[in-house]
Amino acid sequence: MAKVIANMSMSLDGFVADPSDGVEHLFGWYGNGDVTIPTATPGLTFQVSEASAAHLRSAMENVGALIVGRRLFDMTDGWGGRHPMDVPVFVVSHTVPDGWPRRDAPFTFVTDGVESAVTQAKEVAGDGWIGVGSKIASQCLNAGLLDEIRVDLVPVLLGGGVPFFEGLTCAPVELEGPRVIEGTGVTHLYYTVKSGETK
Amino acid sequence: MAKVIANMSMSLDGFVADPSDGVEHLFGWYGNGDVTIPTATPGLTFQVSEASAAHLRSAMENVGALIVGRRLFDMTDGWGGRHPMDVPVFVVSHTVPDGWPRRDAPFTFVTDGVESAVTQAKEVAGDGWIGVGSKIASQCLNAGLLDEIRVDLVPVLLGGGVPFFEGLTCAPVELEGPRVIEGTGVTHLYYTVKSGETK
Repeated sequence: MAKVIANMSMSLDGFVADPSDGVEHLFGWYGNGDVTIPTATPGLTFQVSEASAAHLRSAMENVGALIVGRRLFDMTDGWGGRHPMDVPVFVVSHTVPDGWPRRDAPFTFVTDGVESAVTQAKEVAGDGWIGVGSKIASQCLNAGLLDEIRVDLVPVLLGGGVPFFEGLTCAPVELEGPRVIEGTGVTHLYYTVKSGETK
Repeated sequence: MAKVIANMSMSLDGFVADPSDGVEHLFGWYGNGDVTIPTATPGLTFQVSEASAAHLRSAMENVGALIVGRRLFDMTDGWGGRHPMDVPVFVVSHTVPDGWPRRDAPFTFVTDGVESAVTQAKEVAGDGWIGVGSKIASQCLNAGLLDEIRVDLVPVLLGGGVPFFEGLTCAPVELEGPRVIEGTGVTHLYYTVKSGETK
């Protein structure tokens, strides 16, 4: 069965974007190394350390679908119709945006909630991972649907912004791990959500 | 010169206490190992993993003074007049509590702010470290007085509570590191505050 995994770059004080939605202080590790990692987006490659390359390759090889919120979809303008990871994307949204769905873009708009999105994503992902964004991650945690949390922990304090985890109704949530991968300018931490531990 | 170090147990979502000021989900690592670490408080010993024992011993051998907020002082009832780490404690407070200072307890009440507390602590700490609590840590960061941040990162999401860092006026704060020490049920992360990087 496909695992549902939340993976985000996060500041030491728990934010995935600064108060202006900026990520420039969090994404430095995507460009501070010698190993080139291509993506499905023309012109977008990552230049990362060996350690981070293994982390990224593992994700890119295993991910089978993504679930994102409408806000991220809008902010990225739907990644131009093709996500850099080149997998089907399920957008949890109250409404379907104008001009969507498009026949040339594997984007599905899910208007009946995150549980439905996970069900639909599992149908297409096979044994692949289902990657979820931060807001979706908290909703999945609350629904008991999140299997793993992978934090790309960046050595910076942002002092505010968009938290990775917000609106948890199931806290405290006990985790197992982490497996630690030490990159350059980032520490990758892999946690497993303990099943049955949420209240 | 004495280094000013903030060291706290923190949840993955950035809290040093839960919404009820509880720390039971954060302090499990103090009692989940085979190595006994005595403290200056009668009856209080830690039972930690080898890795965490090295972390704690290093702190206990090197700390020369502590700076805490009035709230923690009140919550712990002044540690009965002797802090478990057995060093002089400087309490940043608007007022001096009734019955204090006491001749038998090395507690100094600093009513003129955190910078004064750091100056006074450095006078007694010699080359020893000055440990600061979470609220004091943020004030020290804002004043450019914090040298290191040591996070005992615990695999739990608390969903709310008391944040390690709050009210930062100097963010973003760039850090160096971390040095990673993998304990049992805790990951010790040592960061250095980059000098001159605060805004």
